[in-house]
This record gives sequence, structure tokens and C-alpha cells, in this order.
Amino acid sequence: MNKIQDALRQVKYIAFDADDTLWVNEPYFREAEREYCALLERFAAGEEIISTLYSIEMKNLAPYGYGAKAFTLSLMETAIKFSNLSKKSPLTPQEMQRIIEIGTSLISIPIDILPGVEQLLKELSGSGKYTLVVATKGDLLDQQRKLERSGLAGYFHHIEVMSDKNREAYLSLLGSLDCSPEEFLMIGNSMKSDIIPVLDIGAYALHVPFYSTWEHEKVDGEVVHPNLFTCEGSSQLPELFRI
Amino acid sequence: MNKIQDALRQVKYIAFDADDTLWVNEPYFREAEREYCALLERFAAGEEIISTLYSIEMKNLAPYGYGAKAFTLSLMETAIKFSNLSKKSPLTPQEMQRIIEIGTSLISIPIDILPGVEQLLKELSGSGKYTLVVATKGDLLDQQRKLERSGLAGYFHHIEVMSDKNREAYLSLLGSLDCSPEEFLMIGNSMKSDIIPVLDIGAYALHVPFYSTWEHEKVDGEVVHPNLFTCEGSSQLPELFRI
Repeated sequence: MNKIQDALRQVKYIAFDADDTLWVNEPYFREAEREYCALLERFAAGEEIISTLYSIEMKNLAPYGYGAKAFTLSLMETAIKFSNLSKKSPLTPQEMQRIIEIGTSLISIPIDILPGVEQLLKELSGSGKYTLVVATKGDLLDQQRKLERSGLAGYFHHIEVMSDKNREAYLSLLGSLDCSPEEFLMIGNSMKSDIIPVLDIGAYALHVPFYSTWEHEKVDGEVVHPNLFTCEGSSQLPELFRI
Repeated sequence: MNKIQDALRQVKYIAFDADDTLWVNEPYFREAEREYCALLERFAAGEEIISTLYSIEMKNLAPYGYGAKAFTLSLMETAIKFSNLSKKSPLTPQEMQRIIEIGTSLISIPIDILPGVEQLLKELSGSGKYTLVVATKGDLLDQQRKLERSGLAGYFHHIEVMSDKNREAYLSLLGSLDCSPEEFLMIGNSMKSDIIPVLDIGAYALHVPFYSTWEHEKVDGEVVHPNLFTCEGSSQLPELFRI
């Protein structure tokens, strides 16, 4: 018997991360970056552009937060920086327009639901034993829209858009749900955001790895914890939860 | 005896709009627009730039939502449009950088609390009779930060960031507060967002005019409704509520 079954006897609230847990997200950002690097190739090699972009994104994380609008502003700032440092012909208004299009296209990416996810939601929801919520970072409007477009909104009691996923934010979420840590299970792909702070407050966490992880969400070393469950990918979810 | 006293006997939840109700907001956007028009003066007259900017903001409202990042993206798009249509020297990367600075400076505007507001919050909170919440549009992170910086966060039970302020959004807010319409009073400066939809669901609304109103929030004609209360400005608030 898998240990997650023991946890599920106490759990009342199951929270799901959204991007790269419910649906594909990260690969669309990586594809946007490839197009962006091609546009700026006269200024620098792709690797250098990506590395500078990442450091500008990190600088802007506190003021701008997460999401496609923040990403677009960082794309523009990075492009201007390369243009200013270069002796090549400067960035043109047309190129700036293309950068805005590349960045803001991420607001309306197709919603590809990950395998196993809808079946799991149907079963958990049908059991009547759990309240399901979405707990996600990012832009409120972006995430609400994506949830609506996914067709999965009906499975969830509500969507909690958190400006950061740290220990305090999870404690506040549990407070607003009136839920104790041992009644809470978080499911997500990011060790840093979905798993470690949740284990830290005494709740349960299930890590569902996704094949692409944003640099900012990576953690070093292996996490071992009695309240941590793992699987190899989203397609294993329905089987894992089956009692 | 003022009618608001009758309403207050039933009211349990008092919700405050944030921008231009708790603190000054709109004038900072107008100031940013003036600086922006000066930067683009070789392309067009200020009036034409503002009018084009407004139509681009309206086009972008659905995909981008409200807030300083959305505003900055619309500033960039408008500038590129004027540059492309003009025979003058095109928009430079340095000018684009300045546009980003003008737009994103609105993320960290000083928080000037409007007169009367803190006294009212202190009195309502001290009476122990009401739960106070913030109900605002805009960017989640922007609004959370502004509330923290205002020093007013302690008066409020929670902050509800709504992606739009329509009838459905207010019904959903009342649902999550477990509150009936006659127990709810909304206080705000925008007839369109803070008053009309609130009256429409049968709750109470208090209109506190602010001297500057964004074009998008304007409504034609006078609103008359038995559940609507008015005053001349925020400095009248403490007196209005005094029993």
C-alpha cells in the first residue's frame, strides 16, 4: 500500500499548481525565447542573450512579479541593453513591436492539459471527499483566463493566485481555507515553490516532475521527507491515487 | 438623521475601493502621460497621443487587465505606432527605455492616503461591528504592495483583487464572504465600478468623488437609488459615519 493512501485519510483540501502541473507552460516560454534570440542575433549569441535576460528577469521579479506582461517588459529591457552596448544598427521600432508580440503571445497560449490530470480531477471530485483548489503564482487575470480556457474550472472550489509561494503564503492560504496542515496536500512540479515550503509547514506534498523547469525554480540536491510523495510524471497520477 | 445610519444597522461588511478612494492614484498616471507626450512630441500633439493611447489601452484591457505593467505595454505600443506612421526620426532604444521607466515608475508611486480615510478606518475598526475588506481592480502584486506601503493593511480582514468589478464579481465576493447583499456596503470613487454593480445586486454603496476620474470609469447621467449614499469628498467620511 502506497503511503499516499494514509495521508489521504486525513487530507480534506488538495491544491494543484497550474503551470506545468495542470497544463503545459514552460515550453511556450522557451519557444518565445528562441524566436527572441533569432531576432537579436546581430547583437549577441543566444546563450548570452538568455543569460542576460534571466538576470534582468530576476532583478525585475520583486517589482513586476510573474507572468507574461512582466516577461515582455524584461524582454524589451534586455533587447535595449544589447542594442545600446552594440555597434550594430540599433533596435528598430518594428523589432520592438515584434518583441511585444512575442512576449504578449504568451497570454493566449493553447491550453494543453497534461496526461492523467483530467482523469484524476474527475475521480477526486467525484469521490466527494476533497475540496480541490488551484494554488498558483503568476498574474491574476492570466491564470483565471487559462483556467477558464482549460475547461477544468468546474473541478475547483476556487483559484488562489499567490504573489509568491513561500511558507507565509501557504500559511495564509490554509488560514483562509480554515484547514490544518495535516488536512492539506499540494500537488506541483516545482520543488522550490510547490513542495519545500509546504513540507516546511507540516502539510503533505506530491511532486509531479515536468520535463522542462525554469532556472528560477530549480533546487540543488534531493529532497527527502516523510510527508513527500513522488511519481514519474502526470500520467501516473490516476493510478497513484486509486484506493 | 442621515439614512446611512439605517443601513449601518444591517451592514456587516464594508468594502473599500483602493486607488483614488484610500489613496491618490489617477494623478500619477496623468503625470506619467504628460512626460510621455513630451518625449513623443516630434510625432504628434499631446491630445492626439493621449487619444490614441486610450484606444490602445481599451483594446488591451481584455488581454492585459489593469495596472502599471499593462499601462507600460500600451505606452510602448502607442509610441511604436506613432513612430511607424511618422516621417520623423524613428523611436530610439533610449526613448523606449525611458518609456519603460515612465510606465513602471507607477508600480512604486508614493502612497498619499486621502484625508479622512485613516480616521474612518480607525473608528469603524474600533467599533468592532464591521469586517473591513479592500475590493480593488488592478494587478494583484501592485495592489498588495500598495496596501502594505500605505500602513493601512492592519485595518482590513483581507484584500480582494478582482479582475473586473461587475455584478458577477461582486456576487462572487459576497459568496466568499458568506454575506447577504443587505449586509454589504461598498465605498468607492468610481460610479461605474464601485457603485452601479453594487446597487444592482441589492447591496449598499457610498460614492466618494475624487477630483480626477479616468475616462474609462466615467458614466453619463446622475445615479439615484435608495441604497446609494453620497458625500462631497473623503474628508467628510468620519462625520458621515458618526452615529
